[in-house]
Amino acid sequence: MKKIIVQKFGGSSLASPERIKCVAEICKETQYNEDCSLVVVVSAMGDTTDDLLDLMVQVNSRPNPREQDMLLSTGEQVSIALLTMALNKIDKKAQSLTGWQAGIKTESIHTKARIKEIETSRILKLLEEDNIVVVAGFQGFDNNHEIFTLGRGGSDTTAVALAVSLGAERCDIYTDVDAVHTSDPRIVKKTSPLKNISYDEMLELASLGAQVLHPRSVETAKFFNMPLRVRSSWHPENLGTLVTDNTNIELNLKEKKEIKVIEGQKAVRGVAIDKKQARISIIGVPDEPGIAAKIFGELSENGISVDVIVQCVSNDGHAELDFTVKRDSAELAKIEIDRIAKLVGAKRTSLDLNVVKVSIVGAGMIDQPGIAAKMFKSLGQKGINIQMISTSEIRISCIVSEKEGEEAVQVIHEAFGLSEISA
Amino acid sequence: MKKIIVQKFGGSSLASPERIKCVAEICKETQYNEDCSLVVVVSAMGDTTDDLLDLMVQVNSRPNPREQDMLLSTGEQVSIALLTMALNKIDKKAQSLTGWQAGIKTESIHTKARIKEIETSRILKLLEEDNIVVVAGFQGFDNNHEIFTLGRGGSDTTAVALAVSLGAERCDIYTDVDAVHTSDPRIVKKTSPLKNISYDEMLELASLGAQVLHPRSVETAKFFNMPLRVRSSWHPENLGTLVTDNTNIELNLKEKKEIKVIEGQKAVRGVAIDKKQARISIIGVPDEPGIAAKIFGELSENGISVDVIVQCVSNDGHAELDFTVKRDSAELAKIEIDRIAKLVGAKRTSLDLNVVKVSIVGAGMIDQPGIAAKMFKSLGQKGINIQMISTSEIRISCIVSEKEGEEAVQVIHEAFGLSEISA
Repeated sequence: MKKIIVQKFGGSSLASPERIKCVAEICKETQYNEDCSLVVVVSAMGDTTDDLLDLMVQVNSRPNPREQDMLLSTGEQVSIALLTMALNKIDKKAQSLTGWQAGIKTESIHTKARIKEIETSRILKLLEEDNIVVVAGFQGFDNNHEIFTLGRGGSDTTAVALAVSLGAERCDIYTDVDAVHTSDPRIVKKTSPLKNISYDEMLELASLGAQVLHPRSVETAKFFNMPLRVRSSWHPENLGTLVTDNTNIELNLKEKKEIKVIEGQKAVRGVAIDKKQARISIIGVPDEPGIAAKIFGELSENGISVDVIVQCVSNDGHAELDFTVKRDSAELAKIEIDRIAKLVGAKRTSLDLNVVKVSIVGAGMIDQPGIAAKMFKSLGQKGINIQMISTSEIRISCIVSEKEGEEAVQVIHEAFGLSEISA
Repeated sequence: MKKIIVQKFGGSSLASPERIKCVAEICKETQYNEDCSLVVVVSAMGDTTDDLLDLMVQVNSRPNPREQDMLLSTGEQVSIALLTMALNKIDKKAQSLTGWQAGIKTESIHTKARIKEIETSRILKLLEEDNIVVVAGFQGFDNNHEIFTLGRGGSDTTAVALAVSLGAERCDIYTDVDAVHTSDPRIVKKTSPLKNISYDEMLELASLGAQVLHPRSVETAKFFNMPLRVRSSWHPENLGTLVTDNTNIELNLKEKKEIKVIEGQKAVRGVAIDKKQARISIIGVPDEPGIAAKIFGELSENGISVDVIVQCVSNDGHAELDFTVKRDSAELAKIEIDRIAKLVGAKRTSLDLNVVKVSIVGAGMIDQPGIAAKMFKSLGQKGINIQMISTSEIRISCIVSEKEGEEAVQVIHEAFGLSEISA
């Protein structure tokens, strides 16, 4: 059997009949150029999901999650049928499969199921018969023949999970950007495309709002060490960005020669901004053991995820706790915090909806001192106030006011010379 | 267990979120008023199927039938989800099922499968748990987990087949007309609604273009003696038309008292027009045994259905054969006929695309002489030329020119006094 490649095309790549025909050409060329068996995973066309949600809220704004899955899973089914027809039109043997036909078994959790296993026999049989197999992303089923969707990043995750289950050589994620960039081109003028990036760096960039790959799919790829290639369906000639494990760069890829060892490349690989942050402060908290655990425990029980946390203790024996939450859960979080503040005898609370998180990411940062200082200095020179700081091994994040967010990204991008990168 | 009623709603009844909410109200009221378990079968919303077909031809005008089924079956899936959400919104427990979830097993023939059997256990369990079960019409699956659509009249057929399999008391077909009428209200001003009609009469009317019920669903209902009620989702208070077996009129229905014995009602129940006809003539055919069989055998092998056939033999030993075919297969039929004409040594052929078939229907006609004469006379008085005549036990059809078709319907409707009917 030939090697297998999995390709995933997102909604914007499939937004019109014309785009679908372009995607079919990409599939045909890949199969020819790489002499491989091809599995193609697709999302719903362009605005289809939004259109369905729009219909939904007109009927019932709080639908049963089961019925929401029933509704939304039709979007990908339309895409698989149309792409298969487009492939047939250019004389490629192809067959479409829904999630249940493709054997994608999920947890029984509506609107956010995780993939448990994939029964690949039907796909393998179709590949052996020389079909391009077109699989609906974002959906699966359970033992009771119920349909489940995978939630955000679902189609990327379907593609990676299929690549892993089929023992594919790699998984191409086609999107509307030509590569992973050093920052968001809508904010920074001279961003540079990255030829390669590690899973960990990609994870930080993805979770920080770079919006290229969903962290879920990157985590799965990392766990199984499945190489991902982020590339554009508008410029398929461009190889885009290869996401792999840094420590295992010697891949059996056609483009192997291009992948230089990562040594010598810049410590900072990219600058990301997450605009969906809100900051909550709780001031004058009695500085007693267990208070933080109590506060964050209650928030967690209410399903509120906390991101950056900063705690400082003043010399009058009171503490101040600052943390950020997703902006759309901020109002709910504030109500909870007000309730808890009374319980623990805090003085007051505040909510600031107008903050963003600006982060630099790079696996090499850990070995290079002065990175954080350089970041803070560049912001200070422009008079941008850093409200909170949070760091991990490969990331430094600053919370700044929303109105200064984009400028912050620009000055940091310039400070680290990312426009001149050619990694 | 409570009695079961199956209700089917067509695309126009579900054309918008508002209409879907109206349908949910009808379901709720039916369940309450009749104290029954309810299974609801739905078509795709309004123009959904046309929109999907439109997308399809832009990608591939001659798609693989398998992929066409994959594409079109999404339309009904959207409807079941939205109607279930609408039912939930008005506090009705409900659950949607796709064709495969509902256990609807079909032949393995894409785009025109027939239902083989229905594995009703899942539906029955949901009904026992007090759910309204909302089932996708028009679709089913086979043992290989392939999706098949049922072709024209599919959703009506799904409803009738479910009613039969579930031992339902009756099957309501909600459409955009309030009842079966004595003729098409777009052609005849004063048509009358029929309170009841026999399966055979309905079959003749349906196949003749009355476009209320597809003959397939009526045939199934007739075979299993399942009462159908044709009614309007815009006027659910109206009982519409009950379609039953004349010989078995004593039904266990709430409305039993209204159903008078059919005796005494008019012999002619309705006037129908089929505008999709084309007439082909083959002239100067040697009058030899087996010629007609040869001609119609060849057409049949090419998938061309012939409707009305008239043959006459002139005294020079040559015959003329006139027949009608569906207009959209007329050009193909003409090519075949030209080929066959040469083979059998016929003199010439002709094709007339501008003919229609006007028919009167009524189970009582067989016992009343003079019906045919009255029909022909009414046409003759208006100078409408009858090109061909065809009759069955309960139907008389005349082929007339298209431009005189609607006038023909009007004069016949008047001649038989159908505007005054109150059957």
